[in-house]
Amino acid sequence: MPIFSQPEPRDDWPHVVLVGGGFAGLLCARGLARTRVRVTMLDRRNHHLFQPLLYQVATGGLSPANIAAPLRALLASQKNTRVLLREVTGFDLENRRVHCDGHEDLEYDYLMVATGAGQSYFGRDDWARFAPGLKTLDDATRIRRKVLLSYERAEQSDDPAEIEALTTFVVVGAGPTGVELAGALAEMAAGTLKGEFRSVATERSRVLLVEGRDRVLPPFSEDLSRTALRDLEKLGVEVRTGTMVKEIGDGVLELAPTGNGDTDPERLRAGTVLWAAGVEASPLGGILAEQSDAGLTRPGKIEVGADCSLAGRPEVFVCGDLASFHQDGEELPGLAPVAMQQGRYVARLIGRRILGKATEKPFRYVDKGSMAVIGRRLAVCDIRGLEFRGAIAWILWLFVHLMYLAEFQNRVLVLIQWGWNYVTRGRSARLITDEPGSQRSEPTGGG
Amino acid sequence: MPIFSQPEPRDDWPHVVLVGGGFAGLLCARGLARTRVRVTMLDRRNHHLFQPLLYQVATGGLSPANIAAPLRALLASQKNTRVLLREVTGFDLENRRVHCDGHEDLEYDYLMVATGAGQSYFGRDDWARFAPGLKTLDDATRIRRKVLLSYERAEQSDDPAEIEALTTFVVVGAGPTGVELAGALAEMAAGTLKGEFRSVATERSRVLLVEGRDRVLPPFSEDLSRTALRDLEKLGVEVRTGTMVKEIGDGVLELAPTGNGDTDPERLRAGTVLWAAGVEASPLGGILAEQSDAGLTRPGKIEVGADCSLAGRPEVFVCGDLASFHQDGEELPGLAPVAMQQGRYVARLIGRRILGKATEKPFRYVDKGSMAVIGRRLAVCDIRGLEFRGAIAWILWLFVHLMYLAEFQNRVLVLIQWGWNYVTRGRSARLITDEPGSQRSEPTGGG
Repeated sequence: MPIFSQPEPRDDWPHVVLVGGGFAGLLCARGLARTRVRVTMLDRRNHHLFQPLLYQVATGGLSPANIAAPLRALLASQKNTRVLLREVTGFDLENRRVHCDGHEDLEYDYLMVATGAGQSYFGRDDWARFAPGLKTLDDATRIRRKVLLSYERAEQSDDPAEIEALTTFVVVGAGPTGVELAGALAEMAAGTLKGEFRSVATERSRVLLVEGRDRVLPPFSEDLSRTALRDLEKLGVEVRTGTMVKEIGDGVLELAPTGNGDTDPERLRAGTVLWAAGVEASPLGGILAEQSDAGLTRPGKIEVGADCSLAGRPEVFVCGDLASFHQDGEELPGLAPVAMQQGRYVARLIGRRILGKATEKPFRYVDKGSMAVIGRRLAVCDIRGLEFRGAIAWILWLFVHLMYLAEFQNRVLVLIQWGWNYVTRGRSARLITDEPGSQRSEPTGGG
Repeated sequence: MPIFSQPEPRDDWPHVVLVGGGFAGLLCARGLARTRVRVTMLDRRNHHLFQPLLYQVATGGLSPANIAAPLRALLASQKNTRVLLREVTGFDLENRRVHCDGHEDLEYDYLMVATGAGQSYFGRDDWARFAPGLKTLDDATRIRRKVLLSYERAEQSDDPAEIEALTTFVVVGAGPTGVELAGALAEMAAGTLKGEFRSVATERSRVLLVEGRDRVLPPFSEDLSRTALRDLEKLGVEVRTGTMVKEIGDGVLELAPTGNGDTDPERLRAGTVLWAAGVEASPLGGILAEQSDAGLTRPGKIEVGADCSLAGRPEVFVCGDLASFHQDGEELPGLAPVAMQQGRYVARLIGRRILGKATEKPFRYVDKGSMAVIGRRLAVCDIRGLEFRGAIAWILWLFVHLMYLAEFQNRVLVLIQWGWNYVTRGRSARLITDEPGSQRSEPTGGG
């Protein structure tokens, strides 16, 4: 960024408040670097997270710091931007105010809300305890601990049934995250951990991937779905499509064929159940809907207009997973590139409005392709209709993800870590760290 | 390790139980790889930790996985060794049994206990809450969170007194850990964080280093102490030697001159107080002392004989920070090289006993030197009486620490991370992650 072209910010410049430092928020902030506005970025976490690689932290391949960077560091060189670690609790759109937890309201001239989505358990929030989802770094280290502890407990058991249960891993949902998690768990069992245990044959672990619809990776073509299925089975993953989860408890779950409620469900013991099935937009969407003419879709997304703004509130924008944006009659998927392009668009639009220029053209998402990795040299890519499989797709996946990580200083480190992991089949970040509320037995109890 | 020379382990081989996977335990296990014994390594954590670099995790320079490696992975190729994730609660030395939390007793033929030391607050354990110590990865991420949150809170404050308090950091104890922490905090404030905040001038942070004795780094020569003091002051650290902590509370502490209880203590507001002042050996030492003729020293270390064994229990060894070993009339310091050499020694000794050979010579610690780093290109080293300072000492420090990390796969990664940090003055691992019991506001509350 050419810092020299940034003028010294002035107090009378319009104030843009960005809520959420994900892809949309970060790209919007960067897009406003040389605009005559004051920008305030609010986030309840201090880091921007490269969510697409979260599954690699959950399976011990990368460290949290490899895929996250302090927002403050990413935006340090933008003189007109400040970052505040704050939880936003609501808005007063009429008076253009943002309510923050434990702080005074912030006034804005323009507001962009992009707080993303969390897991949805389709009304069964009680399952969250037994089947954690993967949305934050803390989720990832929690899953890593759960998976590693299962093996540790299995190693100490004499009961074959218990060992089998502890080494059974179920991933619910066969979208990209579910597929990537299941593939990584299978590779970990058969490769990384092999030979490290004395009474557990980790390569005999069961990894199940459960999907309600009739194929894995439903957003991809049927052909790529079939490839992904074959690749998963090659890695030893048991794929159960057309299968619904009926019940989840502590170490058990019940499965039944989709749409056939009468069948006796299959009961399964599984030490680890991971949830990658549904998302639910951030609760801030509901608050925005109450104060505007915008509607709310079922998973809590808020409908936005062609310029990503709220109906009746042209100065309020919603982007990324929280927004329901329709293009050619279809809702855009909750993907990082959508959020990035929307964030950049809103920055451009605000810049034009400030200068009194004609309004920007409607937002249009350019789909550069989608990809999912299954394992070592196994991936599927769909790049504008061109389909790739196997090693070529995997190399494309690596390349694209490293390019995206360009925003971070640590691209080189990730590349080297991956190279190392590839050669050694190792996952060095296999650490079991503190469980909230866990026993601590240092002489003095710690801090 | 030449795997081919390891015979298939047999059930009738003597059983060696190692408690604690620190330097002593790991080196002892490795030393027994080709001995005709079965080895069981018990630890309540799944990883071996390179403690001397913990301060770099606490100050965001390295990730936890850079300085820790799964014990299981480190010992995977030793067919005669198994690793169990267990908390040891006591012993029955008479019947040669180890009591474990929630598991059956383990019987042993040889026992080696090396569970190290935790913080000691000299009878004021209530200070632990306000002044955390640095002994585990969880301590390090907790300190990292505390330091980073102080700056985040300062950025949101309008009250100059509060900002000053929040950007005041006190390190208690000027041994190597305290000096390294204070130096890293000062460099972080003046370098890494500079320019990232809008209302806080991080370079005006106060870093105080408090030491009861009359100089920093008391184990080093007075000359090197003076160099270290000058280096610390160059970085902006306020060094208070001859000063005792009288009281620590939430965000406040009281200091007074050593040995002068009558002076009115100086009261100081400090957002972060870190404790690097005293250690207390693991409570297992007390249990061993009760069941043997060995004495217990004041910080809870247990006295061992010339072959590191307990008086009256030739099959029980204690090594590392838990052991009080006297050489030439002086107790060996609690340093990694001592633990490593003792671990290797005990492995050799057990090997000789198994073969019925004459007993090993008494253990003798070979002091290869000591070093402490203060900051970029600032360190002090004492290598067998040869003293080094500044950039040369710093390069020596880097070299030696990378060599020690050789046991881990990630030496290359640390080298690259350091190179990166050096060039960019960056600390990419500045992540505030979950606080046990912290608020979580995903729609579904997480797992």
